[in-house]
Amino acid sequence: MFTGIEELKTIQNNLTSWVHYTPVLTSSAFDEAAGCRGYFKCENFQRMGAFKMRGAMNAVLSLTEEERSRGVITHSSGNFAQAVALSARSLNIPATVIMPRNAPIIKRQAVAGYGARIIECDPTIEARVAVTEEESRRTGAVILHPSDQKEVIEGNSSACLELLQEFPSIQMVITPVGGGGLLAGTALAAKAVNPEITVFAGEPAGADDAYRSLKAGKIIPSVNPITIADGLRTQLGDSNFPIIHKLVKKIIRVEEDEIVSAMRFIWERMKIIIEPSAAVAPAAILKSPRLFKGKKVGIILSGGNVDLDNLPF
Amino acid sequence: MFTGIEELKTIQNNLTSWVHYTPVLTSSAFDEAAGCRGYFKCENFQRMGAFKMRGAMNAVLSLTEEERSRGVITHSSGNFAQAVALSARSLNIPATVIMPRNAPIIKRQAVAGYGARIIECDPTIEARVAVTEEESRRTGAVILHPSDQKEVIEGNSSACLELLQEFPSIQMVITPVGGGGLLAGTALAAKAVNPEITVFAGEPAGADDAYRSLKAGKIIPSVNPITIADGLRTQLGDSNFPIIHKLVKKIIRVEEDEIVSAMRFIWERMKIIIEPSAAVAPAAILKSPRLFKGKKVGIILSGGNVDLDNLPF
Repeated sequence: MFTGIEELKTIQNNLTSWVHYTPVLTSSAFDEAAGCRGYFKCENFQRMGAFKMRGAMNAVLSLTEEERSRGVITHSSGNFAQAVALSARSLNIPATVIMPRNAPIIKRQAVAGYGARIIECDPTIEARVAVTEEESRRTGAVILHPSDQKEVIEGNSSACLELLQEFPSIQMVITPVGGGGLLAGTALAAKAVNPEITVFAGEPAGADDAYRSLKAGKIIPSVNPITIADGLRTQLGDSNFPIIHKLVKKIIRVEEDEIVSAMRFIWERMKIIIEPSAAVAPAAILKSPRLFKGKKVGIILSGGNVDLDNLPF
Repeated sequence: MFTGIEELKTIQNNLTSWVHYTPVLTSSAFDEAAGCRGYFKCENFQRMGAFKMRGAMNAVLSLTEEERSRGVITHSSGNFAQAVALSARSLNIPATVIMPRNAPIIKRQAVAGYGARIIECDPTIEARVAVTEEESRRTGAVILHPSDQKEVIEGNSSACLELLQEFPSIQMVITPVGGGGLLAGTALAAKAVNPEITVFAGEPAGADDAYRSLKAGKIIPSVNPITIADGLRTQLGDSNFPIIHKLVKKIIRVEEDEIVSAMRFIWERMKIIIEPSAAVAPAAILKSPRLFKGKKVGIILSGGNVDLDNLPF
């Protein structure tokens, strides 16, 4: 039904020259606080600072020669914009990123630094989509979606594959969920490797459309999400929802103060920098001690791109 | 003349159950900025967050049974206090730490959290030494020095040993220098493994007593050191000065803004948390591009204990 292990391994192999094999860290301080054994897959150490590199790179690698010549385009003000820019540059493909006029200058600089062309638009989702589609029609550039695209999801699965190959005794895995691309990719990998592995996600209570979608059995639109976890202010899509619906056991909602507290815990005790979105998964574990008690839990730390001038502590 | 490779390896082996084997990270962003290839030995990931654990643990392991029964004592308001407390607890030995009355509450809590007894004293070096010696006389507790003690220096050498065993083609190594315990240990290890390796140190210009001591050929006291690198506001001692004088090629002085800038670079690009003292070594490399050009450089990141409520950016 879903992508099988052989296909996922092939994708993982194709990616090895283009993405980092990231380290897995453990922390006795976390284990003591959580009552389980955490295996932290450090995608904050990934190229451009987030797991998004895996999905973007796989999408770009999957293009035909003819498509490559037309280039790629996406609309994003976050990590996926950087991931597309860097992936495209790696293969010498032109990339265009549609960014809202009010995007932080630091994000614009990062995308421009990777060589992508930036087109400004009004700061609404409608404007972003409209400009992207118009530009794609005009130039023939292939549209890449941050989370709701088969190649992106399958590329993302390689992080969990690496983790389980290194630590095959892991019993549970957990990721944050926003657009659903990381969660779907992780679920695909975990279940393909071992159907006994339980898959969880953490989600901000202020942006809990995935939680509600899973309850309802259909996609519930995300309306006015409010959370510090800026990467998770998006919603599930048609490609990843069926995977998540079928393979994910539970979505755990966390409050804003729990996200900040978990982020600070990881910074202080593990000495690594994670962004608020990445703190959502450990926050979910810390608030659910009975669920994870005594288990070996793989945790995908999704990214580490923060603005040091605007920290929540 | 100095401790040989076999003895250092024995010490390294004795420590394996008690300290973390820390990972080595690389960064294409750093390499591009510095013009060399950096191998970052992450002692910020060490137990209690700093390389000090290695020296303290080796000192405690070196005690006789009779000495262990009397316990250990040190005066420190920084990482060494935590290292002694944790080392002693690991072997079930009583530990006492003399701390100035005005030490940050966060440091007191960390030391107390590792089970050491804390005795307050007036916030002067003279008071600290006097109270330590008096308490040692009274209880028989063995005094441990943060940097100027053979066992501490030799324990510290294990970080560089691990680094060179993993990356034998490294041509240069660099550490920060404060009390000199890390620099001396690193120099011992590097020269014992391969006399061709060049050893450097970075030092804050506002606390440059090691630089001046090396120039003068004798220990120049540190008077009123002013630097954000709080771990480096100390001075060389009789045990480590001869090693540093003989084996270290050059001490590179760095300004305060260079320390903060290097710290921020490591945080933003490598996504790891290092304390200001640890940023002094990469800062020294970044300001001396000709010296390190094209070389493979081992960098000991000394620690990662920062107060997130008081960041320099």
